[in-house]
Amino acid sequence: MVQKGQITFYSHPASVYSHRVEIALKEAKADYTNYEVDLANKPSWYAARVNPVGKLPAITYGGPNTAPDDPSPEAAKINESLIILEFLADIFPEAHLLPSDPVLRAQARMFIVATDSLLYDVFWAFFFHYSPGADQTLLNLLESVQERLHPTGFAIGKWSNADIAVAPFLFRFRAMLRHDLGSFPVGEGTRVYEILQGPKFARLMKYIDDIEQWPSFKATWDEVRPVFM
Amino acid sequence: MVQKGQITFYSHPASVYSHRVEIALKEAKADYTNYEVDLANKPSWYAARVNPVGKLPAITYGGPNTAPDDPSPEAAKINESLIILEFLADIFPEAHLLPSDPVLRAQARMFIVATDSLLYDVFWAFFFHYSPGADQTLLNLLESVQERLHPTGFAIGKWSNADIAVAPFLFRFRAMLRHDLGSFPVGEGTRVYEILQGPKFARLMKYIDDIEQWPSFKATWDEVRPVFM
Ligand SMILES: N[C@@H](CCC(=O)N[C@@H](CS)C(=O)NCC(=O)O)C(=O)O
Ligand SMILES: N[C@@H](CCC(=O)N[C@@H](CS)C(=O)NCC(=O)O)C(=O)O
Repeated sequence: MVQKGQITFYSHPASVYSHRVEIALKEAKADYTNYEVDLANKPSWYAARVNPVGKLPAITYGGPNTAPDDPSPEAAKINESLIILEFLADIFPEAHLLPSDPVLRAQARMFIVATDSLLYDVFWAFFFHYSPGADQTLLNLLESVQERLHPTGFAIGKWSNADIAVAPFLFRFRAMLRHDLGSFPVGEGTRVYEILQGPKFARLMKYIDDIEQWPSFKATWDEVRPVFM
Repeated sequence: MVQKGQITFYSHPASVYSHRVEIALKEAKADYTNYEVDLANKPSWYAARVNPVGKLPAITYGGPNTAPDDPSPEAAKINESLIILEFLADIFPEAHLLPSDPVLRAQARMFIVATDSLLYDVFWAFFFHYSPGADQTLLNLLESVQERLHPTGFAIGKWSNADIAVAPFLFRFRAMLRHDLGSFPVGEGTRVYEILQGPKFARLMKYIDDIEQWPSFKATWDEVRPVFM
């Protein structure tokens, strides 16, 4: 695809938000340089010259080709995973990260806004700070995601940024439940996993299976990759 | 400007989020029907047929012309003020609610994301649930907004959704401080207002003055309108 400027992608393999950007870059067949930021020992140039907030992901776009650890002042610096997804939709219109129909674009964005903040909070509450009732909160969230799905296909029908935003969470949920990984009592993960196999969650599970087969997602997901951050 | 479908705008004159959409509609010279929702006595059709979350603002777009209190199932329903702003940017490209340059679009969105959630929380903390220290929190927030402003002109230089997102908050801040309105001790509002007149906040105050003169904003703002919700 036509790409005017260089892209450097600052990421971490365990980062759920970086994962979103990685899928979108693959979907757009973008030409980019990946730079894994050492979060245990964050280089000082990263906040100073790439993302003042110090978080991942971020990208630089355009400017001269420089080493990733020597970003050019002339390159644009873009952070926040959802803003990067919008940016990639803008510069790669042929990739249809967002549909061209304004109403469908709004539907993709409504899906994202309605699910985004909840996914992270519920994830932490269930997998890292388990307390009784967290299972029901997780199931309620997954049910509300399911209710928002188009009857067939992806979140709004065709593949879009809506799927890219939600997939990194859904696959971490599934992997951790299936392998019973989390701060919950032994067996609680697999118990919830079994509930998800029932008829009530058939639409959601079909959605997850469909995402798993989608090439740009497939290229980024390995259930044994470091699971969450 | 070319407009393909009807727009019905569900709003309330005191609503800070509705105000965003009103400015954008004026900027786009959109043809729309305003419907003021009675929040004290919310009609049941509103959540059932317009916005399931029950909040303002929302719009319907397209479909047959019907009365606002009888929205057509064929009309698209869009809620969340920031998503409506993106939608209006999409359907009215000539209004340049977002610039056409993808990097500038990302800058507008980064400005919005960085300020959006803080504005609301700090507003409540200072004006409605005052406790000592809330003045400093408010001043810090306003300083961080100021730091994000382009050296001249509007938030990213030219007028955009970034200004539209932030203006309804900034003008309510200014009006309430100036008139010493809020749950703080008498004189606390005007004291903070005086600090804002000092050299430290010159850029922010110039920005606010510039917004005040901008036609689409001017058409929507009256300092005596019901101030906040
Ligand atoms: N809202 C941000 C969240 C970014 C975020 O929280 N990133 C995490 C990794 S998933 C991070 O960088 N944590 C390390 C740190 O804060 O030092 C986005 O969507 O990009
Ligand atoms: N995130 C939403 C917030 C909408 C919101 O909180 N609206 C308020 C009015 S400013 C509302 O409808 N409150 C009345 C209610 O919740 O019943 C947006 O940006 O549109």
